[in-house]
Amino acid sequence: MFPDKLQEECGLFGVFSPDQTDIASLVYYGLFALQHRGQESCGIVVCDDGLFTHYRDVGLVGNVFTHDVMRLFPDGNMGVGHVRYGTTGSNDRSNSQPLVVNHVKGRIAIAHNGNLVNSYELRRELELQGSIFHTTSDTEVISYMIIKERLNAPSTEEAINRAIRKIKGAYSLVVMSPSKLIAVRDENGFRPLCIGVRADGTYVVASESCALESIEAEFLRDVEPGEIVIFDKDGMRSIRDHCGKAKKTTCIFEYIYFARPDSVIDGISVHEARLRAGACLARRFPADADVVIGVPDSGIDAAIGYARESGLPYGVGFIKNRYIGRTFIEPGQSSRRNLVRIKLNPIASVVRGKRVVMIDDSIVRGTTVARIVKLLRDAGATQVHMRVSSPPFLNPCYYGTDIDSREHLIAGKNTIEEIARIVDVDSLGYLALEDLPKLLGYERPEGYCSACFDAVYPTSIPSETDKGRFERKISEMRGKK
Amino acid sequence: MFPDKLQEECGLFGVFSPDQTDIASLVYYGLFALQHRGQESCGIVVCDDGLFTHYRDVGLVGNVFTHDVMRLFPDGNMGVGHVRYGTTGSNDRSNSQPLVVNHVKGRIAIAHNGNLVNSYELRRELELQGSIFHTTSDTEVISYMIIKERLNAPSTEEAINRAIRKIKGAYSLVVMSPSKLIAVRDENGFRPLCIGVRADGTYVVASESCALESIEAEFLRDVEPGEIVIFDKDGMRSIRDHCGKAKKTTCIFEYIYFARPDSVIDGISVHEARLRAGACLARRFPADADVVIGVPDSGIDAAIGYARESGLPYGVGFIKNRYIGRTFIEPGQSSRRNLVRIKLNPIASVVRGKRVVMIDDSIVRGTTVARIVKLLRDAGATQVHMRVSSPPFLNPCYYGTDIDSREHLIAGKNTIEEIARIVDVDSLGYLALEDLPKLLGYERPEGYCSACFDAVYPTSIPSETDKGRFERKISEMRGKK
Amino acid sequence: MFPDKLQEECGLFGVFSPDQTDIASLVYYGLFALQHRGQESCGIVVCDDGLFTHYRDVGLVGNVFTHDVMRLFPDGNMGVGHVRYGTTGSNDRSNSQPLVVNHVKGRIAIAHNGNLVNSYELRRELELQGSIFHTTSDTEVISYMIIKERLNAPSTEEAINRAIRKIKGAYSLVVMSPSKLIAVRDENGFRPLCIGVRADGTYVVASESCALESIEAEFLRDVEPGEIVIFDKDGMRSIRDHCGKAKKTTCIFEYIYFARPDSVIDGISVHEARLRAGACLARRFPADADVVIGVPDSGIDAAIGYARESGLPYGVGFIKNRYIGRTFIEPGQSSRRNLVRIKLNPIASVVRGKRVVMIDDSIVRGTTVARIVKLLRDAGATQVHMRVSSPPFLNPCYYGTDIDSREHLIAGKNTIEEIARIVDVDSLGYLALEDLPKLLGYERPEGYCSACFDAVYPTSIPSETDKGRFERKISEMRGKK
Amino acid sequence: MFPDKLQEECGLFGVFSPDQTDIASLVYYGLFALQHRGQESCGIVVCDDGLFTHYRDVGLVGNVFTHDVMRLFPDGNMGVGHVRYGTTGSNDRSNSQPLVVNHVKGRIAIAHNGNLVNSYELRRELELQGSIFHTTSDTEVISYMIIKERLNAPSTEEAINRAIRKIKGAYSLVVMSPSKLIAVRDENGFRPLCIGVRADGTYVVASESCALESIEAEFLRDVEPGEIVIFDKDGMRSIRDHCGKAKKTTCIFEYIYFARPDSVIDGISVHEARLRAGACLARRFPADADVVIGVPDSGIDAAIGYARESGLPYGVGFIKNRYIGRTFIEPGQSSRRNLVRIKLNPIASVVRGKRVVMIDDSIVRGTTVARIVKLLRDAGATQVHMRVSSPPFLNPCYYGTDIDSREHLIAGKNTIEEIARIVDVDSLGYLALEDLPKLLGYERPEGYCSACFDAVYPTSIPSETDKGRFERKISEMRGKK
Repeated sequence: MFPDKLQEECGLFGVFSPDQTDIASLVYYGLFALQHRGQESCGIVVCDDGLFTHYRDVGLVGNVFTHDVMRLFPDGNMGVGHVRYGTTGSNDRSNSQPLVVNHVKGRIAIAHNGNLVNSYELRRELELQGSIFHTTSDTEVISYMIIKERLNAPSTEEAINRAIRKIKGAYSLVVMSPSKLIAVRDENGFRPLCIGVRADGTYVVASESCALESIEAEFLRDVEPGEIVIFDKDGMRSIRDHCGKAKKTTCIFEYIYFARPDSVIDGISVHEARLRAGACLARRFPADADVVIGVPDSGIDAAIGYARESGLPYGVGFIKNRYIGRTFIEPGQSSRRNLVRIKLNPIASVVRGKRVVMIDDSIVRGTTVARIVKLLRDAGATQVHMRVSSPPFLNPCYYGTDIDSREHLIAGKNTIEEIARIVDVDSLGYLALEDLPKLLGYERPEGYCSACFDAVYPTSIPSETDKGRFERKISEMRGKK
Repeated sequence: MFPDKLQEECGLFGVFSPDQTDIASLVYYGLFALQHRGQESCGIVVCDDGLFTHYRDVGLVGNVFTHDVMRLFPDGNMGVGHVRYGTTGSNDRSNSQPLVVNHVKGRIAIAHNGNLVNSYELRRELELQGSIFHTTSDTEVISYMIIKERLNAPSTEEAINRAIRKIKGAYSLVVMSPSKLIAVRDENGFRPLCIGVRADGTYVVASESCALESIEAEFLRDVEPGEIVIFDKDGMRSIRDHCGKAKKTTCIFEYIYFARPDSVIDGISVHEARLRAGACLARRFPADADVVIGVPDSGIDAAIGYARESGLPYGVGFIKNRYIGRTFIEPGQSSRRNLVRIKLNPIASVVRGKRVVMIDDSIVRGTTVARIVKLLRDAGATQVHMRVSSPPFLNPCYYGTDIDSREHLIAGKNTIEEIARIVDVDSLGYLALEDLPKLLGYERPEGYCSACFDAVYPTSIPSETDKGRFERKISEMRGKK
Repeated sequence: MFPDKLQEECGLFGVFSPDQTDIASLVYYGLFALQHRGQESCGIVVCDDGLFTHYRDVGLVGNVFTHDVMRLFPDGNMGVGHVRYGTTGSNDRSNSQPLVVNHVKGRIAIAHNGNLVNSYELRRELELQGSIFHTTSDTEVISYMIIKERLNAPSTEEAINRAIRKIKGAYSLVVMSPSKLIAVRDENGFRPLCIGVRADGTYVVASESCALESIEAEFLRDVEPGEIVIFDKDGMRSIRDHCGKAKKTTCIFEYIYFARPDSVIDGISVHEARLRAGACLARRFPADADVVIGVPDSGIDAAIGYARESGLPYGVGFIKNRYIGRTFIEPGQSSRRNLVRIKLNPIASVVRGKRVVMIDDSIVRGTTVARIVKLLRDAGATQVHMRVSSPPFLNPCYYGTDIDSREHLIAGKNTIEEIARIVDVDSLGYLALEDLPKLLGYERPEGYCSACFDAVYPTSIPSETDKGRFERKISEMRGKK
Repeated sequence: MFPDKLQEECGLFGVFSPDQTDIASLVYYGLFALQHRGQESCGIVVCDDGLFTHYRDVGLVGNVFTHDVMRLFPDGNMGVGHVRYGTTGSNDRSNSQPLVVNHVKGRIAIAHNGNLVNSYELRRELELQGSIFHTTSDTEVISYMIIKERLNAPSTEEAINRAIRKIKGAYSLVVMSPSKLIAVRDENGFRPLCIGVRADGTYVVASESCALESIEAEFLRDVEPGEIVIFDKDGMRSIRDHCGKAKKTTCIFEYIYFARPDSVIDGISVHEARLRAGACLARRFPADADVVIGVPDSGIDAAIGYARESGLPYGVGFIKNRYIGRTFIEPGQSSRRNLVRIKLNPIASVVRGKRVVMIDDSIVRGTTVARIVKLLRDAGATQVHMRVSSPPFLNPCYYGTDIDSREHLIAGKNTIEEIARIVDVDSLGYLALEDLPKLLGYERPEGYCSACFDAVYPTSIPSETDKGRFERKISEMRGKK
């Protein structure tokens, strides 16, 4: 696979207020609601009369933005925030966002979610012109592309409009110039982005609708694939030159795993999608069992869907330690312990002497699942029937999902029977590819990207050479940690 | 009510190993699993060949025990840890535990969960002898009582045995002398405490069984009410002089709210108890509704129990932001926001157009519940039928549950009909007092303490004077924060 | 030697204001000026209408009292602060001061500088009555003694008056009750303590006069040996029952090393005392040399005195790295480097080809001096004549100076000729015992304690048994670090 | 004036070792010795087999590089470090150095001291080509210039050689490529840079010679103006294409104020230069006085020079609080206090009743000096004769000295008599311009830059437009803090 620049799932949040107000607090609340999209680092930029104040660091929103930091921010009328996913243990502040860059006509802040497929080419091209890169992120590439266009474009939005002709792949963006907040979604609409509005006229842009409610904004609509939405003193308007240029292919993994169940993306409830995944599994892979349980958190909804469809009782199979997070350290120096035991604990009374249907959202290497199954058996489960609420991962994602490299993917090397044996379950069923449209309530297999399952890539993908280069780079970076 | 010293629910963990090993890491894992019992402060003491190394601070286990701190601990053969509940915003390290004190015959570390009913008398008595107190905690009172006895007692365990004749109320203790680890549970067994053992012969003591699994210890048995269990180089033995002196009256709120559902306390699964609470509610207060939802986390199990018993579908009504915790700050300077909105978000698709049964574990002031109900109605619920998995709080707890003062308790001033109106629900049902035994699978109303509901106190309670003094003290301390 | 409880040189600061004001800031400034007396830990207690707010931690004043911490303090009318010396690397918060303790009649805060000679006896006596000790400090012993008396005394000051009949040794105290600030100095006046007053009527108590100026207080007078000075709403008054009971014997090492040169203690300028030490050395040990240099910081003044008396030019021999402090870590894991090189650097042009007189305040083990001399020779000094502005250390101090144990003291095992050879100097002269009165401008050898040089202890000293016990304790504690 | 980018005095340190070793620790020690050149932020980059690990943050070396941070660094064979001066209170990490940038042929780390005169032009040019800037520092401009040349140059050193034809002004650089360490000094040699070598063959580059000794390196020689020195596996070699192209004009303020007195720059001892400044003052402005004192730290040496030349006794006039630094906060919320009182305290016994000659290195706005003079008078000085060891500041520095803007400079608006009256001294003498060569032991006024005093700029200076732009930018940035 091709996990580009370790910049995968992220959360974006932007605010444009008609009045001078405590923007940083609004962004703080928004990022807090998006924390599940990225726990490695976070950042806020506030614009006060054209001047930017920004702060970024490694850590959770609540740890980075202490009282002492929050008071560095002046009131303002616009702001943008970002939470970033990252490989565990990475401590590199330099890749944190939003990025703030100065250019010939001023300054922009930019927050990005997604992954370009041609960033390596663009980067090389820029480097051959003498460009230097402070980070390994696509965001810096995108910044360059916009700024290059800005030299000749009459406005930032027009520069963006021109730049996105050249950048290919998955990107949702929130860009802030000294006078405007601009939201952008790629032509395919891979990554979600939506708009809300507060009673006081404040516009809000967020990766997921769940972040709107935290600041009492009403959901207005999703940003359309290819749309550029501009918020400024004249209100909200759009550039739609790129709309409709490609078919919408939202990442289906947003529904299966990334997004919060209370979010609604492109009109479809994430929670409902997961219930339907469970129902599909129940129909295709029924089980002669006593109880249906989900692996928290993302297996819960599908388990309920399975239970409802099958008529089997739903049970709480595991308790997840809610305090696991960035704060958990491996305290000992030497041997690494079985983290699954720290994180998850079965409720013995629920599974003891029972035939259990256990639902999880995916199987990656198989190691974790095998440990979870062992926990169940140790707790007295007589049978474990595993159902997976997604099809097997078989292919790299070029759009921002950090899938493990193929040689580690259990589904890449084994048949389903072999996997069942490896993770020690009595039966195993994956969501069928043909059931994917049903998750979204669609009739036909369209409107989403499922390339990680079926290798049908909605865009061109990186050349073999570029893949190779990046793979070396990535494994080098991973080796460094 | 009489919330004594702001030292209420806490978690205890102790380890005695036959060999020199990385004790601090074992205690770290144990405390991590007990974090739900106290998020304000935590501490670890390790004994290495009679010498104590200790570290305590305000914060979550994962924040306090960084790598830099963990490496301060030498290997050892015994250790004791504590997590402490506290009023939000308190930053007072001095009440954190375990307490380490020096006395004429050496040194002890002591960790405590519970609340004495005669601590004010004991304290006054001690003060009249010239004793000074560094803290406002019962733990220091208990330390004094033990040390006073130690002057004439041949051993620490015998000193404890004598001391607990005088201390009255709720206490589970883990005490460490330079050569022994000692676990104690009061005669009534108000607070839980259990014993586990690892394959390597390491004994473990923990407030809840869920903490045993985190370090791969097998559950051995609960410490009996009144029992003193000693772990030393000769193994494990007990002093049972106080066993059977009182009827067992475990705090029923441990089952309803405090404990982790995967724990088993005195042979009863916490999860099962909650399921049964839900079933009782379903039988006594059925509802003509479309879906049953629970307020996370502690309302979930009872909601499943209600759904099963009633035949109504169980649904996921709310998403709880998992990142709320000590890290969340109110970012703004001025106005406090509606925190319920930050913490909980309804899943609209689950409740829209539905008649909803909503289950929560209790109603304290009513303000929070009213906000939650409003969230549901805003999300489109047509009716909200609230069921509470405990009877109404009406009385102070003297055993360690920090119930709000009576004048704030909604149930103390209003009828159930009035409460329903205040929190704006279509119907409201509380768990019946006579259903409490059923939670524990008991035939008759015995074996538990439910004084906060029925004012039947299993022990003597503080005098009116002492209550008054402490109330002033507490409100003073609360005012200070 | 007998360095009791690792609690040696410390700085005290107290404020009593007629009005409600930002007391914490005043104490902060005062402690900042006293930081040289203790860099290990610090603490502030503010009294606001009888309620105490306190904060203590390991670290420098500027690191511990951040903005976030300072804002925890309410305004008040009294406060007390403390900076504490400690063995490098110790991280034990529990010995930090001021100590705040609750007792039967209320609460006191207590800050202490000095060392008792009978603390071990008092402690044992207290422990035999069942007292428990949270710390290993004398301060806790003193608190107990005061509180015991407070049971029957009509006031805190009277309790102190009674208690100090029993506590023997060196102690300056600042005690705060909910309504009074009380300053105490032992009968011998071992440790300094002075009083200042601000234009607004605020009284200030400080270990050294240099701390008065930082908050624009005028020096009023020293607290007399044996005096108890009370500040309350009626102003300032004294209890003099203990005055004149012993001869004043101020620690002469305060003048030689501890105090800041701009302080005036008991009417004598510290800077002047050091100049006179240098002059004495010049008269008794002239040198055929080209330049006189001092080892910073405490050797500088004596070097100037030597230069003036001898007529030799004074030169700046070394530059001291001003950033060495608690922030400096030994970055490498393995080998410890030569810290003298990090800390001090000779100015080659000053010493190259020169015969140098080098003045330092003392020689302890000799290792550091030897390294310093080597730096000078490497920089080109042709001869190094060392003069030491104190007599040789030969005896333990029981009054609070943490002298190394005798077997490590170079002067305890070697003749002056041997020392000169060990540290590789061409000549070596120590201040003569008979010159000590001259430092203070006295005619006769009285009015100061020089027991560390001459073993003439102004008080009884600990029994042999107690010494032995403490020595074991101390080396145990040192071993632990 | 034109204080460009708030990036003025800085300290550079680089290490090239023949072997794999603990490079980070060596750089740590070096930066520690250079801390006086910059207290705002610091950074270290280590190269391990071509891979860079870097860490930068706001704070002192000892605060930023904790044990936890130091252990992030692998062993390596090269490293570069930087300490950065900055406006007090600035907390902007993004301007901290060394800068690490990726380019088409790899990666470089770059640390810079100085200020370009044409950075604004270069920046504009780059921006017009679409370049984006993450920082406001010259360092990023220099990086771009080098990388642009690197596109066509066969090696990094050749790229540097070409780039420095275009960059004008003051710059000392340490550049690290994956295989080489390169030291550069501008043609004029404005900022110092020297080379040392350790017994084990490790080469060291440092802004000042005082940093060599901290890691036991011997001083080898200064980097020559215009020289590019390359350290790689083949040893050390130079490119001298730019040597001799301009006259050497070392910043004379390095001698007067910036550098540590134990450093030797271009063969001249900083300490000696200051002694000579004092002597010149004594000859030109003798005083009928009783004692000569210096304002610590930089006035001390000149005071000794004055005393020696005049025959008046040298005295220690002030004690400086050594703990003032980044750790000091203004604790109160409201009013700012007189910081001079916190920082400096006169020794009354030295000045009381005396006619005092007081030497300081410069007078900027006059406010601080006026306060210092008041301290002396309050302490009893009968006369204060001020001597300043530099000529009056009258002109902006374009080479990296952050001089206040002209309208604030007291010498810009007042005659010497007026200044004397404003700061309330009995007489005032500035170092004469014609005495400047004597400081360096030169016969004639050449070999140094004294443009801030005499407006003789050794290079072209920024255009009026650029000055204006930058001034607005700077005041904007200052306003933001």
